[in-house]
Amino acid sequence: MEFAEYFPVWDHMTPQQQQAISAGLVSRSVKKGTILHSGGTDCTGLLLIKTGQLRAFILSREGREVTLYRLFDRDICLFSASCMMRSIQFDVAISAEKDTRLWIIPSDIYRPIMERSAYVANYTNEIMASRFSEVMWLMEQVMWNSMDKRVAAFLLEEASIEDANRLRVTHESIANHLGTHREVITRMLRYLQNEGMVRLSRGTVELTDRAKLEVLGGAVNI
Amino acid sequence: MEFAEYFPVWDHMTPQQQQAISAGLVSRSVKKGTILHSGGTDCTGLLLIKTGQLRAFILSREGREVTLYRLFDRDICLFSASCMMRSIQFDVAISAEKDTRLWIIPSDIYRPIMERSAYVANYTNEIMASRFSEVMWLMEQVMWNSMDKRVAAFLLEEASIEDANRLRVTHESIANHLGTHREVITRMLRYLQNEGMVRLSRGTVELTDRAKLEVLGGAVNI
Repeated sequence: MEFAEYFPVWDHMTPQQQQAISAGLVSRSVKKGTILHSGGTDCTGLLLIKTGQLRAFILSREGREVTLYRLFDRDICLFSASCMMRSIQFDVAISAEKDTRLWIIPSDIYRPIMERSAYVANYTNEIMASRFSEVMWLMEQVMWNSMDKRVAAFLLEEASIEDANRLRVTHESIANHLGTHREVITRMLRYLQNEGMVRLSRGTVELTDRAKLEVLGGAVNI
Repeated sequence: MEFAEYFPVWDHMTPQQQQAISAGLVSRSVKKGTILHSGGTDCTGLLLIKTGQLRAFILSREGREVTLYRLFDRDICLFSASCMMRSIQFDVAISAEKDTRLWIIPSDIYRPIMERSAYVANYTNEIMASRFSEVMWLMEQVMWNSMDKRVAAFLLEEASIEDANRLRVTHESIANHLGTHREVITRMLRYLQNEGMVRLSRGTVELTDRAKLEVLGGAVNI
């Protein structure tokens, strides 16, 4: 089964556990922009990405957003199954940033396996620790770095994900990643353009001096 | 053994596991102000508080601090044993905010038990999820709330911990909890004093109108 190759703890499960997962597994293809999970009472299950890209973010009551982290091929999304753990008391929303193929392991199938298998429980623990590390990195960015550094770091990250210097992003979407207002981003991008680091045109930002952007944003909290 | 009463998974461990913990357990009393863990390579072990109060915080390269959460009687501190999990890639410092009596379970004793026992692994998972929830709450405060709301919420939390309206805190220490500069806190406190919510004197802040503070800071992200 193809899923078994993608799921790192498969070989550490009993035949009964493997059978329970095979029977309950859902395979899905979603279009870019799909909201896969919207926090709260929603308990979708664990998501395992075959190909594509997901984005985990939080929302303020006024509708402002901030990106917590991205998930790529072979990554597992735990917070879409947050109902499994009573101590998770926060809401994370998950959307597809690219067309994505994924598997859903329903929470009521995963939970009893995790409760009985030390191996699966420790694996789940490592996933949570790894997301926690990403959120702590973001916390440090927000606490100690100014917005110009954060915009530079975001553009470098995007260029690396897309493997391109010319990015199709709106000022609005950058603001939604960084948890600020569009006007703030527009001002920052103009500053970066004046400094020769980017070139702006309708719907795109082109990185014209990556070395200079690295100096500004690359050394962020390393 | 007194420890067994305080440690919720004791009854779910095998006699061998209980014996390993008893043999390795360290009992300690520390004075207010003691740094118990300073992140990085330091791998103190799990801390279980008998009585007292600990503070988990992060530090910027310039020495600025921000409080992540507090730990009280019967709470367990996991990040002082973060070396146990390879996916934890951030540094948290731990200090005693009051004179504290605690037990230390060395990481090299806890780790093999967690690796074999699903019960202990899931318990560890719940502790991490609960700290993650506190950090997410802080993230939401930092992202969506202005500093006046955060100062009001901090004063209300302190008054509740100390069970007193008159708090012995310096502007510097409030700044270190909230990750900002002393001058910012001084300005905020003067504003709150002008509004009749607090009274300032040397080394103390007295809450004079809790209802009004609640309106400002109490409804923060609930």
